[in-house]
Amino acid sequence: MTDSVTGPKLEQRLAPILDLLQKQQVVHAMTQRQAQPRASLIENLLIRQQENELHRALEKLNGPDAAHLLQMLTTDKRLLVWHELPDSLAAQALIELSEAVAEDMVEATPGERLEKILQELDAEELAEIADLLPREPLEKVKALLEANERTWLESSLAYPEDSVGEIMSKDSLIASDDMTVNQAIAHVRSAVELPPQTDKLFIVNRHKHLVGVVPLIALMRHDVDRHLSEVMDPNVVFFSPEDSAEEAGHAFERYDLISAPVVDERHRVIGRLRVEAIMDFLRDRADEQALANAGLSADTDLLGPIWEGARERWPWLCVNLFTAFIATRFISLFEGTIEQLVVLATLMPIVASVGGNTGHQTSALMIRGLALNHVQRDTLWYIYRKETAIGLINGLVWGAALGLFAWGLYQSPLLGLVMMMAVTLNLVLAALLGVSVPVLLDRAGRDPAMGSSVVLTFATDSMGFFLFLGLASLILI
Amino acid sequence: MTDSVTGPKLEQRLAPILDLLQKQQVVHAMTQRQAQPRASLIENLLIRQQENELHRALEKLNGPDAAHLLQMLTTDKRLLVWHELPDSLAAQALIELSEAVAEDMVEATPGERLEKILQELDAEELAEIADLLPREPLEKVKALLEANERTWLESSLAYPEDSVGEIMSKDSLIASDDMTVNQAIAHVRSAVELPPQTDKLFIVNRHKHLVGVVPLIALMRHDVDRHLSEVMDPNVVFFSPEDSAEEAGHAFERYDLISAPVVDERHRVIGRLRVEAIMDFLRDRADEQALANAGLSADTDLLGPIWEGARERWPWLCVNLFTAFIATRFISLFEGTIEQLVVLATLMPIVASVGGNTGHQTSALMIRGLALNHVQRDTLWYIYRKETAIGLINGLVWGAALGLFAWGLYQSPLLGLVMMMAVTLNLVLAALLGVSVPVLLDRAGRDPAMGSSVVLTFATDSMGFFLFLGLASLILI
Repeated sequence: MTDSVTGPKLEQRLAPILDLLQKQQVVHAMTQRQAQPRASLIENLLIRQQENELHRALEKLNGPDAAHLLQMLTTDKRLLVWHELPDSLAAQALIELSEAVAEDMVEATPGERLEKILQELDAEELAEIADLLPREPLEKVKALLEANERTWLESSLAYPEDSVGEIMSKDSLIASDDMTVNQAIAHVRSAVELPPQTDKLFIVNRHKHLVGVVPLIALMRHDVDRHLSEVMDPNVVFFSPEDSAEEAGHAFERYDLISAPVVDERHRVIGRLRVEAIMDFLRDRADEQALANAGLSADTDLLGPIWEGARERWPWLCVNLFTAFIATRFISLFEGTIEQLVVLATLMPIVASVGGNTGHQTSALMIRGLALNHVQRDTLWYIYRKETAIGLINGLVWGAALGLFAWGLYQSPLLGLVMMMAVTLNLVLAALLGVSVPVLLDRAGRDPAMGSSVVLTFATDSMGFFLFLGLASLILI
Repeated sequence: MTDSVTGPKLEQRLAPILDLLQKQQVVHAMTQRQAQPRASLIENLLIRQQENELHRALEKLNGPDAAHLLQMLTTDKRLLVWHELPDSLAAQALIELSEAVAEDMVEATPGERLEKILQELDAEELAEIADLLPREPLEKVKALLEANERTWLESSLAYPEDSVGEIMSKDSLIASDDMTVNQAIAHVRSAVELPPQTDKLFIVNRHKHLVGVVPLIALMRHDVDRHLSEVMDPNVVFFSPEDSAEEAGHAFERYDLISAPVVDERHRVIGRLRVEAIMDFLRDRADEQALANAGLSADTDLLGPIWEGARERWPWLCVNLFTAFIATRFISLFEGTIEQLVVLATLMPIVASVGGNTGHQTSALMIRGLALNHVQRDTLWYIYRKETAIGLINGLVWGAALGLFAWGLYQSPLLGLVMMMAVTLNLVLAALLGVSVPVLLDRAGRDPAMGSSVVLTFATDSMGFFLFLGLASLILI
């Protein structure tokens, strides 16, 4: 029996398929088959056999595994696997794929097959990937949905981005507070379909207003004749569809929720938020931030084609070239000074570099504090004072160390003094900016995790050069 | 009724307490009361009244909210609130606090109160915070636990860091596969305590080996006379205690799990992994990575004291000073060249900067690919080829743009050529390192998200300076 128990070792399950795909010739032949249909009979037989083998292996996968497999492959092999996936599996894989890969797959699928695949999905699943789909097949599939499913899909697409409404699901188990436990159990038993990740019944009063919840497990344990109004927990964490999904995520973490009701302004249940949607959302967001920090969009595909990869990086390269160029204009102000004392050119990058690092430390702490809602107006001033003081202390300590080093290396105590002053001032400035930049981005309604680093690097580089060379031209020349 | 329904608006609930704490005089008086017990009677009465008000407001919170409140406060107010928290609430808050704050609170708590607080926790909760606790109170509280709880606590502390064993919980609902549905329901009803986040029964055979699961909701719907072996789902995602918690997290996301059994090598259930523990783990890890990337440890406290804050940043500052200093040694090799053509000093930071940025883009993609297990040996070479090609293309395109700019600005076509060549070479190098550094860190069993950026910046700075100045001295001088 234990053979059928599925462990977490995804790699082991995918290994035979990956082995098959590693036979370069086979893959080449399979992908070329449509292009060169005149292969010899024997060749064709061999290829057909390999295709069948691949098909059989793929059929055994589930949707998430198939998605993972696709993510691991380069474009040609991806298309081959996608082509061989049964429609239902392809549908389940599609909703799990990263945006970049999902888009490529949709693009490569003939309209007819795409419609078949989409018909395997329900309104909720369609809502998840609707923005990746071309208009036509989406409309066709929408027309095939039942009226209430179609309404759900449309209203779900209308909620703002990153809102609870956008990620909530449709089906909840709802019971009336005047039901007995026995009636509620019968109600659960008679429900046509079981909403996944259902851990509790949402309890409403006769006005259909949410008044409490009863965990399923509690339902099984209570005296069957009691009313739900007696056994329910009236302390419910609930959400509005307009709430931010990020905030909802914090609430899920704080209160260890598995599901929670989403209500309209009159407290009527209009949907359900599941921990699965929250985890997906948080993962996507973390991903997005990590890449955005390096100037890449969330759907950048590590295994995608080269040209696309090159062009994806242009906006950021362009911004970076521009800011780096402006920063060097501060150096050009002092070319005369450098000509007289070339060692300044050697030492100036150190001042810029330690400033940048200190700024990033402060901004990393600020970004986390803002994301977790730990920063209030009252404490912001404490943070300013604290970070500036830290910049000052560390500037003096490490600036002095650097200054002594420069003194020893170039036999000039004044050079050491300039070094120390420039490092100290740049660290204080970096600390001030490290607090201000994320706060300003946050106030402006933008994500401080995205964009802080460009502004900071630009400022600490420019000021590092300017302070060091400026002080040098005042003191040394 | 709707008044008792708790929305996600934590801020609104904390607002009255924060208002109270904002009266600086009150806080000052309260915190000074032990230091200066001779305040006048009226002062004392006033302070006492405020303390009572605070105490009453705090009593209404739950553990996670109290923890959030503590995280938002500066040290003096934190201690005041901590002091006023009822023991049971303090206990629940303690397990939710970030490590830095939890440590401070433990340190500030007299031994006697700490023991009382810890007695409010069960073995699982104690295991979560055991590494923050001083030996003595932990041992005392351990001695008060029941034998099986104590054994659990000890074995749990023995599992490796970031393993499934470390974060799994103790209680599972287990049923035998020869039970009928009716018997299983009776079994659930008779369980003394209900393990939280229980969505399914784990089904074992007569050898106590895990053979399947039955979701609770399915249990409520099946024919009561059928055997669990007939109705169970034999496809179980299970874990070993030695599995990495990170991998388990991927599996939870992939298969939308709420809980999963943890089994020993003979497939006997020894614990249960809950989605809550997974979410906590993933959040902590993301946090840790974001800060480690800026050279800070995960328990750095934005609102902590200044001196601690300054010293926390020394190791990183020191590393950064060292690498920046080494990078400038490459400049010092060419001081003669710079003396002859000072504009080289102005332009050289651009070459270093674009190299650094390109390297970070590549490494950000690699780090994500490695974390999601999308990189296999087979595709690694594709990635090398792809990223190098991207570096080459972008180096030529943007290097040429920069070169033209330098030519125009300084009227020297050869300077433009040097610029273009240096940028191109540095981008190719950055791409190679952007792939290699994360891969090597990963192979060495380290987290590529932590540490890649130092090595990369060091290399692209050094090489940027070296390539640009080296080419300039060959071509221009």
